[in-house]
Amino acid sequence: MSFPERPDDQTITSPRSDRVRRIASLSGRSARRRHGLLRVEGPQAVRSLLQHRPDALGELFLTQEAAAAHPELAALAAQAGHRPRRIEPEALRAMVREQDAEGALQNPQGVVATARTAALDLPLAAALAGLPAGPSSILVLHELRDPGNAGTLIRTADAAGADLVILTAGSVDVHAPKVVRASVGSLFHLGVVTGADPATLYRDLAAAGVSIAATSGYAASDLFGTALPPRIAWVMGNEAHGLPDAVLEIADLAVRIPLAGNAESLNVATAATVCLFESLRRRGDP
Amino acid sequence: MSFPERPDDQTITSPRSDRVRRIASLSGRSARRRHGLLRVEGPQAVRSLLQHRPDALGELFLTQEAAAAHPELAALAAQAGHRPRRIEPEALRAMVREQDAEGALQNPQGVVATARTAALDLPLAAALAGLPAGPSSILVLHELRDPGNAGTLIRTADAAGADLVILTAGSVDVHAPKVVRASVGSLFHLGVVTGADPATLYRDLAAAGVSIAATSGYAASDLFGTALPPRIAWVMGNEAHGLPDAVLEIADLAVRIPLAGNAESLNVATAATVCLFESLRRRGDP
Repeated sequence: MSFPERPDDQTITSPRSDRVRRIASLSGRSARRRHGLLRVEGPQAVRSLLQHRPDALGELFLTQEAAAAHPELAALAAQAGHRPRRIEPEALRAMVREQDAEGALQNPQGVVATARTAALDLPLAAALAGLPAGPSSILVLHELRDPGNAGTLIRTADAAGADLVILTAGSVDVHAPKVVRASVGSLFHLGVVTGADPATLYRDLAAAGVSIAATSGYAASDLFGTALPPRIAWVMGNEAHGLPDAVLEIADLAVRIPLAGNAESLNVATAATVCLFESLRRRGDP
Repeated sequence: MSFPERPDDQTITSPRSDRVRRIASLSGRSARRRHGLLRVEGPQAVRSLLQHRPDALGELFLTQEAAAAHPELAALAAQAGHRPRRIEPEALRAMVREQDAEGALQNPQGVVATARTAALDLPLAAALAGLPAGPSSILVLHELRDPGNAGTLIRTADAAGADLVILTAGSVDVHAPKVVRASVGSLFHLGVVTGADPATLYRDLAAAGVSIAATSGYAASDLFGTALPPRIAWVMGNEAHGLPDAVLEIADLAVRIPLAGNAESLNVATAATVCLFESLRRRGDP
């Protein structure tokens, strides 16, 4: 064929190109805000974006090897009216320059996409109006700060069949790459409300017929022996400070997670996991 | 009184003293091995060391403020025949120079101790011989690499009433400060066996009458609907590679954790939490 390729068909080769630098800059909150984009890394998370929120797709970058290994990605992008950009492995790796806690470089396995943050914004009122009429479970993260905890809990809430995750104002930015990575695509499957105002959130949940449930080491009733309301929001607090007393006071239900050994408490991700999976177990075993 | 103070009664003031540097160096594996010591930070973890493993105590350092806030620490140390060393806050902070994943400095709250690694070594045979005769649950971490996961899982296993945590050779060093911090003292309460040889571990567990249980997304039976043997070892695999097929093949029991949403899997800490607390729930609700 002798037609000249369109500029967009050219393979991205330079790790120092403006485009590569722009996508690398999305590690920072100010760049995400300026560009209105977040970065999504790896085939599983990008597949989830393309399957569940194709409307939010910005760009899709694939190495030749990744395109061959994951042909469904280009097919899903085509359904959304997008063409993936081909990129050399070195340039793709330069888009994802972050190290993990152990100092190892992230490996996006040849797949990076961007998503438009505005398309992912979900107002609380719309999220509550969209809840199923019957049983429903929600996870509320009240000033949760750790990105790994937030991402893992979005993934865990999804796995446990929750309908919605709500983060209050003062929580970690769910569009930070560490959160997106730890959620492994669940960020695009579940509804996620961010920046909820704690002063009105709990009233709005009550108005939607959702019971507020909190865990407390001082609660009289234990999780495994307590009836759970069908529409329930599990509220988990900040890693260092826990839940404010004001939230414990307005909770419809406070339960103690039984602790058998010497541990004085559980970390927030562990506590949320136990509660969410107990909700799931009850639904299957009424 | 006009008696001169013994040298050991002097407050440590310099953040650059040899002693402070030596304790800071325990962040690294080679220094831990050379000195035969690990570092323990913060009142909760140090209290657990003093309560459960006073035989392993090396030195105890307290700021004046921490000594006043936690008088039980000096009392527990005295029972073990130790006197705490007084230290200035700046020197104490220099013992713990590590940043967390978010770049924040660790805050040991005025309390640092060292523990002798040799005293904490627990041979597998002794650990298995020390299991209770009746129901027992064990957590096996097979080449688990992430320090935060390992520490959190030691804490979670303790909270869920497990008797023992076993890490195979090739797993993270449980004496790394991140593991010690995330375990919040449970490292000194539970028996923890390290460096277990995977070629013989599972045979030794079977010989001790312990059933090997693994989770697998492909298992036919689901966790919540499966009878659990009274003596059970939950085996969890590496964060990236999961469990080797050889372990799945010799497992007495493979269960699927029910996944209700779109998440394709759970991370290893979440999966272990669900299994350990389901074991705990069954024990309370036979």
